Formats: sequence, C-alpha cells, structure tokens
Amino acid sequence: MSESQAYIEANKEKFLKELFDLLRIPSISTDSTKKSEIHQAANFLIHQLNELDLSRVELFDTPGNPIVYGEHCPYDDRPTVLVYGHYDVQPSDPDDLWDTPPFEPTIKDGLIYARGSSDDKGQAFTHIKALESFVKSGNKIPVNVKVILEGEEEIGSPNLVPFIESHKEMLECDMVLISDTAMFGKDQPSITYGLRGLAYMEVEVVGPNRDLHSGVYGGAVENPLNVLCEMIAKLKDEDGVIQIPGFYDSVIPLTEADREAMAALPFDEEAYKKSLDIDAVHGEKGYTTLERASARPTLDVNGIWGGYQGEGAKTVLPSKAGAKISMRLVPDQNPKEIAQLFKKYFESLAPDTVKVKVEEHHGGFASVTDLDFYGLKAGAKAFEEIYDKEVLFSREGGSIPIVADFKRVLGVESILMGFGLTSNAIHSPNENFSLEDFYRGIKTSAKFFEILPDFKE
Amino acid sequence: MSESQAYIEANKEKFLKELFDLLRIPSISTDSTKKSEIHQAANFLIHQLNELDLSRVELFDTPGNPIVYGEHCPYDDRPTVLVYGHYDVQPSDPDDLWDTPPFEPTIKDGLIYARGSSDDKGQAFTHIKALESFVKSGNKIPVNVKVILEGEEEIGSPNLVPFIESHKEMLECDMVLISDTAMFGKDQPSITYGLRGLAYMEVEVVGPNRDLHSGVYGGAVENPLNVLCEMIAKLKDEDGVIQIPGFYDSVIPLTEADREAMAALPFDEEAYKKSLDIDAVHGEKGYTTLERASARPTLDVNGIWGGYQGEGAKTVLPSKAGAKISMRLVPDQNPKEIAQLFKKYFESLAPDTVKVKVEEHHGGFASVTDLDFYGLKAGAKAFEEIYDKEVLFSREGGSIPIVADFKRVLGVESILMGFGLTSNAIHSPNENFSLEDFYRGIKTSAKFFEILPDFKE
Repeated sequence: MSESQAYIEANKEKFLKELFDLLRIPSISTDSTKKSEIHQAANFLIHQLNELDLSRVELFDTPGNPIVYGEHCPYDDRPTVLVYGHYDVQPSDPDDLWDTPPFEPTIKDGLIYARGSSDDKGQAFTHIKALESFVKSGNKIPVNVKVILEGEEEIGSPNLVPFIESHKEMLECDMVLISDTAMFGKDQPSITYGLRGLAYMEVEVVGPNRDLHSGVYGGAVENPLNVLCEMIAKLKDEDGVIQIPGFYDSVIPLTEADREAMAALPFDEEAYKKSLDIDAVHGEKGYTTLERASARPTLDVNGIWGGYQGEGAKTVLPSKAGAKISMRLVPDQNPKEIAQLFKKYFESLAPDTVKVKVEEHHGGFASVTDLDFYGLKAGAKAFEEIYDKEVLFSREGGSIPIVADFKRVLGVESILMGFGLTSNAIHSPNENFSLEDFYRGIKTSAKFFEILPDFKE
Repeated sequence: MSESQAYIEANKEKFLKELFDLLRIPSISTDSTKKSEIHQAANFLIHQLNELDLSRVELFDTPGNPIVYGEHCPYDDRPTVLVYGHYDVQPSDPDDLWDTPPFEPTIKDGLIYARGSSDDKGQAFTHIKALESFVKSGNKIPVNVKVILEGEEEIGSPNLVPFIESHKEMLECDMVLISDTAMFGKDQPSITYGLRGLAYMEVEVVGPNRDLHSGVYGGAVENPLNVLCEMIAKLKDEDGVIQIPGFYDSVIPLTEADREAMAALPFDEEAYKKSLDIDAVHGEKGYTTLERASARPTLDVNGIWGGYQGEGAKTVLPSKAGAKISMRLVPDQNPKEIAQLFKKYFESLAPDTVKVKVEEHHGGFASVTDLDFYGLKAGAKAFEEIYDKEVLFSREGGSIPIVADFKRVLGVESILMGFGLTSNAIHSPNENFSLEDFYRGIKTSAKFFEILPDFKE
C-alpha cells in the first residue's frame, strides 16, 4: 500500500469530521437569504486548500457567489487535472419529510444523511482529501492539479462560464475531473460519459385582475388554474412525445450501437419500480427505461401553484396560476433555442381569455465524452483497483452543463468519476451518501492521481 | 318617518363603531387555530342580542363552532321571521394583496374595507340594528322574530343542519330572512330567488414514494404534476362542457321564460370585462354570461399545488400533487351524487403509473324560491321604499346551501335580501361593503318588519 493510501486509511475519522463541518453549512444558492452561509462554505474550502501546500489559493469574487480556486503545477511533463466541484446545495424543503435535520449530518446504517452529502459537498471533498493524502504523508502530488469549486451549480452556474472564459489561461488543463454523478449501482463503479442538457422555464397564467368568488363568477370567467392545466396537458401527447414544434429537430438519434450498449447494462426494472413504489414506469413510447432516463429528452413540471392551498375549502376563482417546467436535453439540442421554441408554443396555447408570461431560468448543453480518452481509461483503472470490479460506462439523465462549457472553452474532456448512488435521494428529503463510498472515493481519487502519468499518450 | 327609521338615522355612528368591533375579530372558520376568535365573535353577538329585550337568548354549543340564538314571539296573528346569518369569515390570504389590514376596518371612498364587511358580518348586522331600532325607540318589534347566527357557513355548515333538524320546533317560522347576497348593481335593489348548490372535492395524485431528481428519473417515471394537469384538462371539453358522465342528468333545463327574464336584466358585458381586466368572457357554449354565472352548473379548480414553488429553479420530480376542485350545481343536482360521479370519473382518468385519492369537502343543494310568496313581495316593497327604485328578481351563482335545508327541514321559503354588490370582493383581498348600503340595509330590514304583517295572506 502506498503512503498516500495508508494515510487515507489512518485518517478516516478526521476526514468525516471535516465533511460534517462542511455539511452543517446551509449554503443554498437558490435562496437569496443564505448569502452569508454561501461565504461561510467558500471560506471553509479556502481553509482546506491552504493546508495542501499549493502554489496558489484564491477566493474569486463574482457578481454572484464566490469561486474557490487553488493550483500547484510543478511538472512540465505530467498531465494537468482540473478538479471541479460545487459547494452550494439544493433547498432542503419539504423539511418535514426529513427523518433527521437536513443540516445536521447523521450516520445511520452506513449512510451519511445530510443535504449536500452526495450532491456535491461529499463527493467534491474526496478530491481535496486525496490531495491531502500525498502532502500530509510527506509526498508530492503526482500530477499538476488545479481545483475550482463554485457556489452556483444548483442555479445553473451563471457566473462560472464567464469566469472560465475570462480565465482561460489560468484554467488551462488536460482534463477536468468531476465527482457529481452516481455509480451504476452499489459496489458497481461506473464512469458517466454522457449527460443531458437543460432548459428550465417558469410560466404564469393571469386571468381576472383579482381573486374572485367561484360562485359569483364561476362558469362565466376563465379560471387560470384550469387553463394552466389544459395548456400543460398539451405539452405531451399520450405516447409521451413532446408536442413543441421543432423540439426534436436537433436530437441525434440513438444508434443501434448506443442502444445495444445500454441494453447490456445490468438494470433490474422490477427492483427499480419497487424502490419507487410504482406499479408501472412511464415515458416516451418506443424507448427503454434506461434510454428514457438518460439518452432521450424530457419535459417535466417541477412545481405548480395557484389559488387556495390551505386547510379545508375556499371557493376562490384565482387571478393567477404558475408553474416551473423543465426540459432535459440531449445532443445536439441548444438550450436557448429550445427555450424559445417552448415559449412560442406555450404562448400559442393560451386562449384569449388569459395573459401568459414565460420566463427562462438557467439552461445548459448536453455532453458526451470520447470513450478513447486516456484520462477516462486511467479513471477506470483507478476505480477497478479500489473497488475490485470492472467499470461500466454509462450515460446519465442529469445535467452538468459545465461539462459542455469546459469542452467548448478549454477544449478538454471531463472525467465523471461519480461515487454516489441513485438511491442517494439528491434534491430530495433524506439525501445521503455511503460512508464506505466516501472513503473509497478518496482512495480512488488518490489512485487516479498516482497512475494518471503512466496513461498519458 | 317612523320612530324606528328616525332612530336609525340618529345612530349611524354608533352602529358603525359596533360593526367595526365585530369586523376586528378574525373569526376564520376554516383555520383551526382561530377557535378563540370564533368564540369571541359569537359572544359579541350574544351581547348584542341581550340588548334587544328578547324573551330568549342562548349560545348553543355544537361539535364545531357555537350557534347564536335569540327569539321574541309575542304575537299569535303575525308572521314569524327567522333571521339567518353567519359570523365566520373566509381566510384573508393572500394578505399582501390587501391595501389595508383585513381585520382593521378602514373607510375609503364610502366603502368599509375589511374581511367579512359584506360576507356576512356587515349584512347580518343590519337586521340586529333594525330590531334595535324598534326596541330602543320605545316600540315593539312588529313581528315574531327568531335570530340564528352560525359560525361555520364558510366551511359548509356541517353542524347547522343537524341543529335545525334537532330544533325543528324551536325554529318553526313562516320564512327565513337572509342578507348574504349581492344586489344586481349599485343603487339597484334585487332579490335573489335562485342560488346554486356546491360539491367541493380535494384530489391527490401520488407517483413515486419520494421526490426525485428530474434529471436522473425524468422521462422514465411518471410525474404526478403532469398527470394531475392532464386529468384536470379532461374534466371539461373545449366548449366548456363538463365531461363527468351523468353530470347533467338531473339538471332542469332553463325554460324560454327563464332565459327571457335573464336577458331582460340590465347587464353590461363590456363593463363586466373591463372591471375584471379580461379581454373575453369564457364558459359553456350556448349560454349567456348571466346564465353561465347563475343558472348553469360549473367546475372550477380552486387551488393546486405540488413540487417546488420557491424562488429560482429546483429540478425535482415530485412525489405528489394536489388540487381543490369545486362544482356549482343547479336544481335538481344532488351534491352527494355529483361528488360520487366526480370521484368515479376522476379515478377512471388515472393512469396505472399513479395512485389517486379523492376526498369530499362540504356540499349543498341549489334552490329556487317561489316568486309568488308574500314574504318576497314584502321584501320587494321594503326595498322600494328605501331605495326608491323597482326591485329586480335574479338568480345568483353562489351557494347558500342552508336555503335548501331550511326548505327541506322547516318547509319554508327564504327571502334573500342582499345589500352587497358584486364589486364587494368577497372571498378576495380588499373585501368591502358600501357604508351607504349598510345604513340603507338597516332601514330596509326595519321597513320589512314594519310592513310584513300587512302582506300576510
């Protein structure tokens, strides 16, 4: 065992304690009242990087949340790895569905329960601890390394892309290393080589200028809640096909090879349904569950509201209704174009009895990484050494739009070395991260840094 | 001018001050945390009745909110009027849309702004002050009178009907007098002879057993928000016709005479649209706005919720979604039967990918009063004496299910002597009641008691 691996083995408790300190900070980026917590988390990470004997550690201000940066590039002939992660988290609501407080990390049955435990504080932290394992065991980090940790991933990284564009030289690298995805299953390491893109919309339907009594006006004045439902119902047909004109125009169809590779992945649909308590899966006709969940575009209502939501009955015909609606995209759909197509179609669905507003939240491109890239092969080897199991390569349904941006701006591939599980309940109550995978993640990351120079072509 | 009318003229300020005291009490029946305020309002009214030299005043406990009762029946040969009103109010939310605090009555441009000012504290209070005008001016109340004021009208009067049934003898009367409706227009007195019934449902659509990440699961797992919208969209067709099988089976069609009477009412559709800031009205094809708003059954979503409703974006595929949906009914639709038909149809719309719960809130029958009834004629005459204008007879779209219950249990007609206006924004922010109509209401009520004995056949 290398000194780095021995250090990791010996310092598990210390690592966990530090992670808990980070998880206790409610750094929710979508909540504008949590600015101070955002800075607290960023400063915590600056402090962590300061322990690593890097040549440069800096907190960059942005118009939004700060970017944590560190680098150490002493080698001319070794690859440069840019480690990317995010220290912001999703909101914790509905809080009453959490079994333990979302910002008080708790271990139960080998799982760390806390908002951000998997997405992405716990996963991002593995790389910092991997780097520490070299430095604190009296060794050198074996590759050139740059670390960038942002605080706006959950709101679409509005300031990271301009930052990358204006710091292209500083961020020059041979690959990006990201742990913000799930493994294919428990004890089954996998590398995600495809991610979906995103277009996220908010709509509002406005009818009368005030809430009305549904007895006095009902039947004669259009009800924005009914209209919103009717409009949403027209976004997909009964086969789950999205009805926005032009929506599928830039979709690269799945090849036979793609479909065969996906069909070969170990996937138990019965277990999947059981874990979700559903009697049937549902999606676009003509595709398998794995294809629907990772390689085909989607449209989901993420939130809806309007009228009376309280206890009992209120006979109101509300003035307005709203919804958040997002679409997952695949290559080569352009999120800006899709947002425009959505807006145009949605507005066209509105009857003349209401007014409609359509607003665009953040979006991002889908991405697919080249399977022949040497960094990907080194990642697979590191995984296999630690997990003692062959790595699977899969596409994932979520979005890390920054992967497409790294490719576009820096010209490099990303290695998505996820240590999470789909059962981690990220974005949901009771988010969790396996304690064992936290430790194995640190070891896999350290192993990756150790062996990467040998893979360089 | 009679001594009673002179007393009213001389005591306007006192009446207003007392009404304000009543309006300050947030007696919201649908809010279970407001029990103490409910009792406060009931006791305020008991105190008011105690001032009237009645032979009996009593606060009746019920399994829910108490019933205020008073009576004085000294005459063998004069009619007995049962005055009905309610002291509970709708919730005030959304509070931020009120220009003045909902429970701090404020006069502006001749209007009393407060929750309950029109519905129904202000209107019910006119009769108490009318009775006072006889007693305090040294006269006798000219008819036998019974007063019943409940605290659960806004939640469907669950305890009033059993109370009426178990107190049939005590409540024996010749007619019920209710002021809880709107006049046809400003300075245009009208008597409502028809009211719609109500069936009020709450539905829940449950998909996966927890909130999911819409990237990881979107496209493969049914989204309860999309499903709920699709189900709601199937409740009506494009012509506004309700699709629930059997829904129209018991509807008594409008006669030509009904339609001609309604068409003869003064109604300015352009002004109606302008007052609501809408470009077009909307409703069941083949009917006029007045018919749709008062004499045809309807279906409205009163509230909807699910997923993320906060600031910004959250990529959640929620576990569940819910809605409140109510139907206004016309003779002879039976609310219990309609609720069952709704439940059956709604459940039939659910795909096998979700579970659906349908719950019934309160309901009530529609009612139409006989236009030849002498009490109605006395009411019209009283209106005409005070407002100096011919009374119109109209049907109204709202529901006072208790009217049908009074007919069924006590065998009597109700006289709906509304002093409100449709612009009173009842059930909405900035509810208001005309100061002038408050005073004219008291005078009209007193005049009615004065002349009623002469109308008795």
